[in-house]
Amino acid sequence: MPFTPTDYLPYDFANRRHIGPSQSEMAQMLQVVGAKDLDALIDDTLPASIRQKEPLDFGKPLSEAELLRRMKKTAQKNKMLTSLIGQGYHGTVTPPAIQRNIFENPAWYTAYTPYQPEISQGRLEALLNFQTMVSDLTGLEIANASLLDEATACAEAMTMAQRVAKSKAKGFFVDENCHPQNISVMKTRAAPLGIEIIVGDPDTMDAEAVFGGIFQFPGTHGRLRDFTDQIAALHETKAIGVIAADPLSLTLFKEPGAMGADIALGSTQRFGVPVGYGGPHAAYMATKQAYARSMPGRIVGVSIDSHGNRAYRLSLQTREQHIRREKATSNVCTAQALLAVMAGFYAVFHGPEGLKAIAQRIHRKTARMVGGLKDAGFDVRPATFFDTVTVEVGPLQGAVMTAAVNQGINLRAVGKTQVGITLDERTRPDTIEAVWRAFGIDRADKDYTPHYHVPENLIRTSDYLTHPVFHMNRAETEMMRYMRRLADRDLALDRAMIPLGSCTMKLNSAAEMMPVSWDEFALLHPYAPRDQAAGYHEMIDDLSAKLCDVTGYDAISMQPNSGAQGEYAGLLTIAGYHRAQGQGHRNICLIPMSAHGTNPASAQMVGWTVVPIKSDAKGDIDLDDFRSKAAQHADNLAGCMITYPSTHGVFEETVTEVCKITHDHGGQVYIDGANMNAMVGLSRPGDLGGDVSHLNLHKTFCIPHGGGGPGMGPIGVKSHLIPHLPGDPVSGEGAVSAAAYGSPSLLPISWAYCLMMGGEGLTQATRVAILNANYIAKRLEGAFDVLYKGPTGRVAHECIIDTRPFADSAGVTVDDIAKRLIDNGFHAPTMSWPVAGTLMVEPTESETKAELDRFCDAMLAIRAEIAEIESGGIDPVNNPLKNAPHTMEDLVLDWDRPYSREVGCFPPGAFRIDKYWPPVNRVDNVWGDRNLTCTCPPMQDYLDAAE
Amino acid sequence: MPFTPTDYLPYDFANRRHIGPSQSEMAQMLQVVGAKDLDALIDDTLPASIRQKEPLDFGKPLSEAELLRRMKKTAQKNKMLTSLIGQGYHGTVTPPAIQRNIFENPAWYTAYTPYQPEISQGRLEALLNFQTMVSDLTGLEIANASLLDEATACAEAMTMAQRVAKSKAKGFFVDENCHPQNISVMKTRAAPLGIEIIVGDPDTMDAEAVFGGIFQFPGTHGRLRDFTDQIAALHETKAIGVIAADPLSLTLFKEPGAMGADIALGSTQRFGVPVGYGGPHAAYMATKQAYARSMPGRIVGVSIDSHGNRAYRLSLQTREQHIRREKATSNVCTAQALLAVMAGFYAVFHGPEGLKAIAQRIHRKTARMVGGLKDAGFDVRPATFFDTVTVEVGPLQGAVMTAAVNQGINLRAVGKTQVGITLDERTRPDTIEAVWRAFGIDRADKDYTPHYHVPENLIRTSDYLTHPVFHMNRAETEMMRYMRRLADRDLALDRAMIPLGSCTMKLNSAAEMMPVSWDEFALLHPYAPRDQAAGYHEMIDDLSAKLCDVTGYDAISMQPNSGAQGEYAGLLTIAGYHRAQGQGHRNICLIPMSAHGTNPASAQMVGWTVVPIKSDAKGDIDLDDFRSKAAQHADNLAGCMITYPSTHGVFEETVTEVCKITHDHGGQVYIDGANMNAMVGLSRPGDLGGDVSHLNLHKTFCIPHGGGGPGMGPIGVKSHLIPHLPGDPVSGEGAVSAAAYGSPSLLPISWAYCLMMGGEGLTQATRVAILNANYIAKRLEGAFDVLYKGPTGRVAHECIIDTRPFADSAGVTVDDIAKRLIDNGFHAPTMSWPVAGTLMVEPTESETKAELDRFCDAMLAIRAEIAEIESGGIDPVNNPLKNAPHTMEDLVLDWDRPYSREVGCFPPGAFRIDKYWPPVNRVDNVWGDRNLTCTCPPMQDYLDAAE
Repeated sequence: MPFTPTDYLPYDFANRRHIGPSQSEMAQMLQVVGAKDLDALIDDTLPASIRQKEPLDFGKPLSEAELLRRMKKTAQKNKMLTSLIGQGYHGTVTPPAIQRNIFENPAWYTAYTPYQPEISQGRLEALLNFQTMVSDLTGLEIANASLLDEATACAEAMTMAQRVAKSKAKGFFVDENCHPQNISVMKTRAAPLGIEIIVGDPDTMDAEAVFGGIFQFPGTHGRLRDFTDQIAALHETKAIGVIAADPLSLTLFKEPGAMGADIALGSTQRFGVPVGYGGPHAAYMATKQAYARSMPGRIVGVSIDSHGNRAYRLSLQTREQHIRREKATSNVCTAQALLAVMAGFYAVFHGPEGLKAIAQRIHRKTARMVGGLKDAGFDVRPATFFDTVTVEVGPLQGAVMTAAVNQGINLRAVGKTQVGITLDERTRPDTIEAVWRAFGIDRADKDYTPHYHVPENLIRTSDYLTHPVFHMNRAETEMMRYMRRLADRDLALDRAMIPLGSCTMKLNSAAEMMPVSWDEFALLHPYAPRDQAAGYHEMIDDLSAKLCDVTGYDAISMQPNSGAQGEYAGLLTIAGYHRAQGQGHRNICLIPMSAHGTNPASAQMVGWTVVPIKSDAKGDIDLDDFRSKAAQHADNLAGCMITYPSTHGVFEETVTEVCKITHDHGGQVYIDGANMNAMVGLSRPGDLGGDVSHLNLHKTFCIPHGGGGPGMGPIGVKSHLIPHLPGDPVSGEGAVSAAAYGSPSLLPISWAYCLMMGGEGLTQATRVAILNANYIAKRLEGAFDVLYKGPTGRVAHECIIDTRPFADSAGVTVDDIAKRLIDNGFHAPTMSWPVAGTLMVEPTESETKAELDRFCDAMLAIRAEIAEIESGGIDPVNNPLKNAPHTMEDLVLDWDRPYSREVGCFPPGAFRIDKYWPPVNRVDNVWGDRNLTCTCPPMQDYLDAAE
Repeated sequence: MPFTPTDYLPYDFANRRHIGPSQSEMAQMLQVVGAKDLDALIDDTLPASIRQKEPLDFGKPLSEAELLRRMKKTAQKNKMLTSLIGQGYHGTVTPPAIQRNIFENPAWYTAYTPYQPEISQGRLEALLNFQTMVSDLTGLEIANASLLDEATACAEAMTMAQRVAKSKAKGFFVDENCHPQNISVMKTRAAPLGIEIIVGDPDTMDAEAVFGGIFQFPGTHGRLRDFTDQIAALHETKAIGVIAADPLSLTLFKEPGAMGADIALGSTQRFGVPVGYGGPHAAYMATKQAYARSMPGRIVGVSIDSHGNRAYRLSLQTREQHIRREKATSNVCTAQALLAVMAGFYAVFHGPEGLKAIAQRIHRKTARMVGGLKDAGFDVRPATFFDTVTVEVGPLQGAVMTAAVNQGINLRAVGKTQVGITLDERTRPDTIEAVWRAFGIDRADKDYTPHYHVPENLIRTSDYLTHPVFHMNRAETEMMRYMRRLADRDLALDRAMIPLGSCTMKLNSAAEMMPVSWDEFALLHPYAPRDQAAGYHEMIDDLSAKLCDVTGYDAISMQPNSGAQGEYAGLLTIAGYHRAQGQGHRNICLIPMSAHGTNPASAQMVGWTVVPIKSDAKGDIDLDDFRSKAAQHADNLAGCMITYPSTHGVFEETVTEVCKITHDHGGQVYIDGANMNAMVGLSRPGDLGGDVSHLNLHKTFCIPHGGGGPGMGPIGVKSHLIPHLPGDPVSGEGAVSAAAYGSPSLLPISWAYCLMMGGEGLTQATRVAILNANYIAKRLEGAFDVLYKGPTGRVAHECIIDTRPFADSAGVTVDDIAKRLIDNGFHAPTMSWPVAGTLMVEPTESETKAELDRFCDAMLAIRAEIAEIESGGIDPVNNPLKNAPHTMEDLVLDWDRPYSREVGCFPPGAFRIDKYWPPVNRVDNVWGDRNLTCTCPPMQDYLDAAE
């Protein structure tokens, strides 16, 4: 045998690692699909008119090793100073056990939002811990399972206050001591809703003029004050009192509930989540029980399963955008689940004693530092504080700031003559000495005796974190096992395909994830001087350029930290453009009936009126209806929001016409990027006529779903919209998030993906995503109707399976099928969206043929079971579908069912020895909403359950 | 409520994270144990005479955050040059998915050796993949599941050759092209066994004079030659042919089997395992089927379970030291399981095409580099090569080496006038250019057209890695799920206590583990210039100093890379000392009958004769017997090997007397450090009279067991033995391992442990380990006899539970109990050692009271089941003990047992929804040894199984 060189490329990330089907698998699949080759399939699927002209070209793709090398070089351009800037972002110590076992564990980070409670009990418990922690610390009855960041939480609280307040005033009072970014985002949110923001000293508040007020604790410059009187005044006028509070400070100081607050919110970043140049971290919100149904965001609650056992699930989902649409409480869809889980575990890890001790240590360090400054004659305010003070330095502000940088420290410039300093969990004695040196003080920290400088009247008197989970043994062995047990209860991408239509659950590769843990990306403060973030900016610039290439837009804003935020930011950008053209009255938004629920909710948030557009029989936009509505509203047409390919998974050839009609009537076109995974490299929204789109980086660009967030929703715009993009949250206008670049510590993932895939790889991924979807559609053909194929009988990257006929024929609902799929070892596809009673399947390019086959086998077996019910072969009520999912408990109990244990528990597709067992039977959603419990159940319940 | 400072120390690693029981739990436990406080318990347990005088003091312990900061500072003192030194160590790319999902995943690294096959099927499959890979690449029929390093594998092959050769010659031929460290370690091993090592050119070998010969492929300086003729010549004289081969080269070149080799061995380091300054990595060994039973090391084999389903297990265990003792094939106990798993996965990840492509790319890079050198007029040899060449530079050797360092490259000095260069998977174009610059050549790599320089007659013609596992879809999604499935089949410390007596399965904390992944520790070549390893040496020096403090010795050698290696190295040190005193004839070693099997096996390896010493009725050393044997052998007494506290878990007060007797008769005292976890901070072997001890850093000092290795067995010695410690493997004499510091990339774990615990913390850990063992002993009292308590009724850090009576009373064996414990969710304690028919339980300090109680509840429930059998209440054959472990399959099948599913599957202690299910029923060991299969079963078998 001669020495023949192999043409195998071992480091080809795109084709070897990211894309699921191998070449030979693809050949087999194409045969099933009935396409000559992949080119032919794509030609069938995508109308020539919408194809992009030039192939994507990002140069030579990098191997995993080269990628990590490149990323490290970039990362090291970030300068690692110690930031004592505060302003809502604090150094924190992530316990290594949490970092390794949660943050870096695919069982946690690849999970989806816990809409299917039976396979999500682990993270639901972790999130319930988070809610209990928030509820306890704030002294309010009910908390949600996180919001995007503190600033958006402020805005959400404001609009919630407006919803619940009996006061009909139009103003909203904002404490001037709120963090600037909070004020900035509230202003952005208030404007289109006609809310008047009144910023001022709480002592000067006119309660009559407002439907609510918000106060910051501690104030952005460190002031601690009791807002009881202000809130009482608000209550007098039927207005709502909101407190934005640092949760760590609440271990020491009077909690919002005790001050009478109706709503509390804040960031849990300092509970073990690195600052990451701005995010992601979990904001929290808590309120009184009475306002529970008006609170935005997901709320985990306690219910029971079909056997009456306790089971967790998401409560009160009817509040949410995917059901309430433009009537929703918020457009919030993504939460910050992974970060909330980490913050909750941080509290479990430290317990109330530990958290209090950490807070006290920070305070003592601050007291020592202040003592040193005062001894040297500096004027330091306030007199009592937690971790933040300001120092008067007169005209030397710049000199002190520079001296601090030379000592490796970032301080905060306050006004023209002051310097702000905020200490944190990471502050070391040499940090304090470095601060002193910046002020010209040469002194050793250890000389100083610690003492307290806290206001006695604000000392907290109530207990918190009394639940046993916060008092469990905190040995790492026990913690590690608790984390593992919870992880094992859930079904995530690391065990099975999650074929969720419109959610694009693709591979989150280890190489993409690793840089996120690097200190150079994790530890940078969002308001650190820009020259210290050169690595971040190199990445943001290059990724933005690539996303422009992908989308056909001219600029990208990374600020929106979720898809819904992206929509909102995009619409604001359009609104700003219209205003600049003297067309500020334009407020009509055409949205197809099939749109994702965030679309109308976002339109509502910018103050627009949604005009729904019908779909035709094929699920496409009814062009006549669109044309007539556009004409009807021509004078006031702000724009349209469409999704491409459509939410029905079809590349509508009419898209360019839709864009043209909109433009002809003075509107702007928003193309929702949720389905971008079907377009990358093949078609560009900017070329189709879009003016703005958001990209879900957590869908198309590999940021993991984290069990329900984080996400990233940057927007791309055409050049005429660039001046109207969101401004800087601290210095600019129109900010939508607390940090200028949203959740930038996630960007290494998407950047790594682009660098390793290259243009050709990204395009191939799109093509294979389409192949995979068509393969499933073909394999299920005959057994199920696949709705909304294109004119050539192809689907795009997802397919809708019609399960509606089975309701009549067999009494089987889409829910039964979804739960039965758990027995087969799968997360259900998207249920009842965009068409009620159907399943929408999106396999993505990362799934192999074997996994697709496993899924198809499962679906066909389910269809056979339905057929047996239809034919009377099996009982219509007591059958595997109705009893699904089956648990281990079912196996142990006496089995009085008309089918065997084998049939119940091991339907086709289910792994045998590697079977995933749901920890609970089918969860009762109604019971949970009727008996609302959104904190950890009391110990007695555990005892009852044990008996 | 006033502002009261809390005295809670949130960052106290020792008491909050490492030590399991909390203060209040300890109080409850002490009450059960019947001790006033912990001091009193320790006073009861440890005789005052053996207590150390001064408390351990390592200064202030570090928090996790401070530790990582400190470690990073130290790590950064290592200089990160690119080493092209080769000599058996190569740059390699660890696939990120393997790094994250295996190397950094506690499910893999905290597992124990797979002696209990039912709970080890995942890693047994992974190790079987490794064996299949080795068998295929070498072209030999059977492979083991790793040895410690290539050099020790050479030594093992040499002694194996002596065992199996029919030739009775005393010589062993060693190819002069073997790596120097291989020759060095073989010389060390040969000397005490009377083997004459003959180093020479293979062409000059006298086959008559040797029982075997070893050849290196490629040679250490890059030469590729066919050893078929040499091996044929050896076979003529009934001698054995051994080839040490780089497994990556075997993807291109003629394999050892095709050359007729009887044994092949080598290092799999370059299969994705970082060099780590010398280790750990997995060495491999393969041989012909006929010699299987003579091969050292663990061998995974295929058997069946009690239902006839396929199950993996360790084969041919009767060869091993724990059973054969001084007759064992080797003293090898620890393997390099975790690294073998990684290497096996590297092969699964790349498949034969990928491995071949990697090898070809390396070769082409080498060819390009050589081309550039030749074009510039350099004399480069050999003419054909794989990845290694030498360049003649005359008197400029030093200048070129220095120039290379200035270019960021380490080359190898060969002789006085040559420079060696070895390229690898990490070599980049700019590496080649840097090499050229070191030779004064200014040229761009991309100018060069790749071509091959391989000997056509050595091209491999046979297939390899044909098994489907090496052809599975290699998408990361699929790989990640495969790794997860295997991990989930096993029960490791991340789910439950592993109460293995003498194995000290304690917490391996995340903070301790993290630095091992850092490039600064992972990427350093073991033969890099010492000034580039300043960080390593700072760590080694400080850790050595601390271990001296702990043990009372004067110096530490880090070279032994397992406990058994430590024993062997320690005995060699004693032998060297005796020789230096003119007492080289001393060759009698007194070893108590109760000793660990490695002790006599190690003594045999240094050529000593073992004289066993009786135990008295309490399990203690029979002092009279000891005294008389010592006297009897006074003239030839080399020393004694004792374990302290004894393998029965008792602090024998006679220890000082034993040492004195030994010394009085001219012997030296070896104190086995296996039970050091009962001594740290309380008692020091050096103070008791020990001259040398090894420390199992993977027991007492937190290196995880990795599912059967890696380990580290450094030895501490008194000052008089220092001159006789193992020498440098390249430049010195008496080396026992390939690398001077054994497996140094593990040392960050033990160092981190010491730094975070501090002296007080380490001492407290010992005290709590003793408390935990006594708590278990007390709770089981009455139900079971606890053997070998000390005079005050206390046990040390472990306790032996007598299960022998149940054989007669109920027909229940220790095996039945061990397997039943799997149903309860536990790994069994150590079985039948040191006393046949008993269980030895060592809980360690890291287990919480809740976990200890769960274990005790399980044991008591088992005792109740035994009682029911005894009383005739349940069937003596068809009962939960005999049918244990129960699997999910049992639940699904028809249940015709006289007890319920509930009783079978959920005995006390078992978690309910978090239950661990073994993937197989009880494994048939005899069947497996009778039907030996040690590679992945052929595909047909899978098909059969599926039907």
